[in-house]
Amino acid sequence: MNDLSLNKLDRLVAELGDIPVVTDPKVVRRRSRDFFWYSPILNELLDGKSADLIVAPRDESDVIRVAAACARHRVPITVRAGGTGNYGQAVPLNGGVLLDISALTDIEWIKPGVLRVGAGAKMNAIDAETQAQGFELRMHPSTKRTATIGGFVAGGSGGIGSVTYGGLREHGNILAARVVTVEEKPRVIELRRDAAQKINRAYGTTGIITALEMPLAPSWKWIDVVVAFDDFMDAAAFGYEAALADGIVKKLLAPVTWPLPSYFGALKPHCPDGKSILIAMIAEPSLESFKALLGNRGTITLETPTDDSPGQVPLYEYTWNHTTLQVLKSDRSVTYLQCLYPHDRLLEKVAEMRELFPDEVLQHLEFIRFGGRVTCSGLPVVRFRDAHRLNEIISLHEQRGVYIANPHVYTVEDGSRYKRADADQLGFKQEVDPFGLLNPGKMRSFVSARA
Amino acid sequence: MNDLSLNKLDRLVAELGDIPVVTDPKVVRRRSRDFFWYSPILNELLDGKSADLIVAPRDESDVIRVAAACARHRVPITVRAGGTGNYGQAVPLNGGVLLDISALTDIEWIKPGVLRVGAGAKMNAIDAETQAQGFELRMHPSTKRTATIGGFVAGGSGGIGSVTYGGLREHGNILAARVVTVEEKPRVIELRRDAAQKINRAYGTTGIITALEMPLAPSWKWIDVVVAFDDFMDAAAFGYEAALADGIVKKLLAPVTWPLPSYFGALKPHCPDGKSILIAMIAEPSLESFKALLGNRGTITLETPTDDSPGQVPLYEYTWNHTTLQVLKSDRSVTYLQCLYPHDRLLEKVAEMRELFPDEVLQHLEFIRFGGRVTCSGLPVVRFRDAHRLNEIISLHEQRGVYIANPHVYTVEDGSRYKRADADQLGFKQEVDPFGLLNPGKMRSFVSARA
Ligand SMILES: Cc1cc2nc3c(=O)[nH]c(=O)nc-3n(C[C@H](O)[C@H](O)[C@H](O)COP(=O)(O)OP(=O)(O)OC[C@H]3O[C@@H](n4cnc5c(N)ncnc54)[C@H](O)[C@@H]3O)c2cc1C
Ligand SMILES: Cc1cc2nc3c(=O)[nH]c(=O)nc-3n(C[C@H](O)[C@H](O)[C@H](O)COP(=O)(O)OP(=O)(O)OC[C@H]3O[C@@H](n4cnc5c(N)ncnc54)[C@H](O)[C@@H]3O)c2cc1C
Repeated sequence: MNDLSLNKLDRLVAELGDIPVVTDPKVVRRRSRDFFWYSPILNELLDGKSADLIVAPRDESDVIRVAAACARHRVPITVRAGGTGNYGQAVPLNGGVLLDISALTDIEWIKPGVLRVGAGAKMNAIDAETQAQGFELRMHPSTKRTATIGGFVAGGSGGIGSVTYGGLREHGNILAARVVTVEEKPRVIELRRDAAQKINRAYGTTGIITALEMPLAPSWKWIDVVVAFDDFMDAAAFGYEAALADGIVKKLLAPVTWPLPSYFGALKPHCPDGKSILIAMIAEPSLESFKALLGNRGTITLETPTDDSPGQVPLYEYTWNHTTLQVLKSDRSVTYLQCLYPHDRLLEKVAEMRELFPDEVLQHLEFIRFGGRVTCSGLPVVRFRDAHRLNEIISLHEQRGVYIANPHVYTVEDGSRYKRADADQLGFKQEVDPFGLLNPGKMRSFVSARA
Repeated sequence: MNDLSLNKLDRLVAELGDIPVVTDPKVVRRRSRDFFWYSPILNELLDGKSADLIVAPRDESDVIRVAAACARHRVPITVRAGGTGNYGQAVPLNGGVLLDISALTDIEWIKPGVLRVGAGAKMNAIDAETQAQGFELRMHPSTKRTATIGGFVAGGSGGIGSVTYGGLREHGNILAARVVTVEEKPRVIELRRDAAQKINRAYGTTGIITALEMPLAPSWKWIDVVVAFDDFMDAAAFGYEAALADGIVKKLLAPVTWPLPSYFGALKPHCPDGKSILIAMIAEPSLESFKALLGNRGTITLETPTDDSPGQVPLYEYTWNHTTLQVLKSDRSVTYLQCLYPHDRLLEKVAEMRELFPDEVLQHLEFIRFGGRVTCSGLPVVRFRDAHRLNEIISLHEQRGVYIANPHVYTVEDGSRYKRADADQLGFKQEVDPFGLLNPGKMRSFVSARA
């Protein structure tokens, strides 16, 4: 029950009136979790953390009512959307309300290249609507089929599509956000242009996002491709060439070292024994050029249109943070890291990391654009020994110029590259969450001026 | 009359039957020219060069008949399309037939992302057709309204759109070409994948292109934008940021130093006195992000939808090789260069070149992608003193790591970065033009094995 007296919660619930509430402790506990269990460290730290109740607003005016009530009673409020975060982003550290945002799914409008949508909309539902008009989200996490656009913007960084558009951080990848403040009289604030970054990857500590304006990419007929290579560095080198080939339209380029593909369930028939693979999504009209570039350096083992309609497992569910999940399904002794390679010494550094930890850190790269340069995000699968060794591995990367966004910590600061909160976000939080009720503990450098 | 006896030409014409022929010397001489007069050096070298007659095939079977007749009679054949080349590419050095390809304009088909079209089709006509289906050419020269797709592929390099897709050389930017050989029994050859590069920038020496398969980009509503800056380096620095911003969809980013805009005719009202400008084309949904990135570093003086319909002068006609033309209209004492800046020391090198020739070489840059990296093509306007000084300027660039594609020479080799013909193109020429009749003298390292 944390620090909250039953009494306080009862009064809160009474004030919520007809807004749906769930109090069944089993349900509340289950939905207070996300995918933090990827990390053996977070798995211990966040064990048993739970909200006290779930509140499920039906629209923005319900959100405002909940925010007001929580402010009045000083009850923490943690937004929960798809619950697919990897760092316990949606896990309430101090109980209180778990705000289930998943009913806010309305598409306000779709214009050529732009969409305005409720924050709770699932990304696959968005794409299904926009694709009918020739557009799709520029990028999505590999959890597209279960995650929401609001959760992605508040808790994620990039994904399938970032090889072309970069991550959510790049200018123009979030156009606007509408947020509700947590005050006795909540305000609704529209954040446009750079201001929209105030809610990006802030884990819902800087306002309750109710709607987002997102840029759309022209939609292509995507082809899922798997290419097998004798050596991982060949897969990486070819992936790099393909990433640099601006004439080839692509959405995904992910080199994965053997033996990781041996864990790839339904994909195994396309993963020859002993081979490293490159997983790719190529626009159909670029497929011929992609093959020309490949020549006979690798063997295409799968080539089929992307299908992520209900019941299908798309190829991208073997990439990004799904790669590790595929291994975890049968081997719980592994975990992972999130690396950012320097663009100007990319393959050299990849080779170096590979030699440094030949069997302990199993390479999985994602080609991305970062600040306009082609580089890789590394999401290697790590054979976990203990926390000490994990931190040593992290240091060894950083000492050699490979940046780590640590996925074994749960605060915004510790998960960031420079171990600090963005000044804009921190300042904005004072404005929108004066009592420090939003996902408390996640932005650890925040000290409420009024709590 | 060059080396060709009247007799030979009479017999050739007789064999052409009903294929339209123009022999009026005034017309033939006029159409044997292109825009080589940009270069005072070429202007002397190519003075008076002319074909003997123009032949205007109505379709590919006519092309085959002309090619056969020219092969039999050993008459040179130079393809002429829009005639907008800058290096005398379409100027016959040894007389013979000027093959007017402009009737081959049929669009064979348009599929999502790909088009198959006759080589003589004008690029603005192509875009008008494909835009109706939501697509457009990935890139076009600033001569889009008069130049053909075949002339672009055979004589050009890149242009508006290359800031996103790179130049024609990048993998995937030419999908296939159909060429007719010049032999007594001409063959029709389909070049796909990398092989299509055999006709790229070969000045029509490696076969008569009758059709092309070109990749298409999704079409956007483009906004023409002019931004004024106090200093040229500010325009360049902001242009660089915008070029690197993968979340901002753009087609053109061209910094132009003052006083060049003072020559910009109809654009002058948008070119404040003493200011350098950045000329840009931004997709409408990205305009807000573009402005956010700009902040108050520069002043937007023009913002209007791109309009290149008949009778309109689009903004892009102040960019690429048009920038120099705008100046030449009132000052024939200038000429220009074509530079490629190193991507890893871009602004540093631009500043260096600017200081080296403060008043003699007036900076005009075009942001492009080259090999997957953002860099600049430089098309500075040069105050011409004499050939010696021009070559000195070229050397001074090259010594400092700025590559020059010399626009004051007329052979494929001399105009290329490494001063040699592509081995593939040279080899292919033996196959398709065994007698060396195609645009003779332009691929100077070619020695016919059979002539
Ligand atoms: C298998 C797997 C693969 C993944 N792949 C990727 C990937 O490719 N790229 C990537 O970036 N991430 C990835 N993730 C992480 C995560 O799936 C994504 O970031 C996802 O977009 C989160 O969306 P969600 O709806 O599940 O959000 P949740 O997990 O519910 O929430 C995430 C965070 O956002 C906050 N939040 C959610 N909605 C709102 C709102 N409306 N207002 C304010 N705050 C809000 C929550 O409080 C929480 O802090 C992956 C995770 C897993 C388990
Ligand atoms: C003001 C101005 C601006 C320009 N801007 C650019 C620019 O931005 N980017 C750029 O790359 N170029 C530019 N150019 C150069 C030129 O306009 C383009 O390359 C244009 O695409 C040439 O097309 P065209 O139809 O006029 O070809 P032509 O000038 O008629 O021919 C060009 C060359 O191609 C050959 N050729 C033409 N058609 C065929 C065919 N079917 N088969 C075989 N060979 C053929 C010709 O023999 C000749 O060697 C510019 C020129 C000017 C004058």
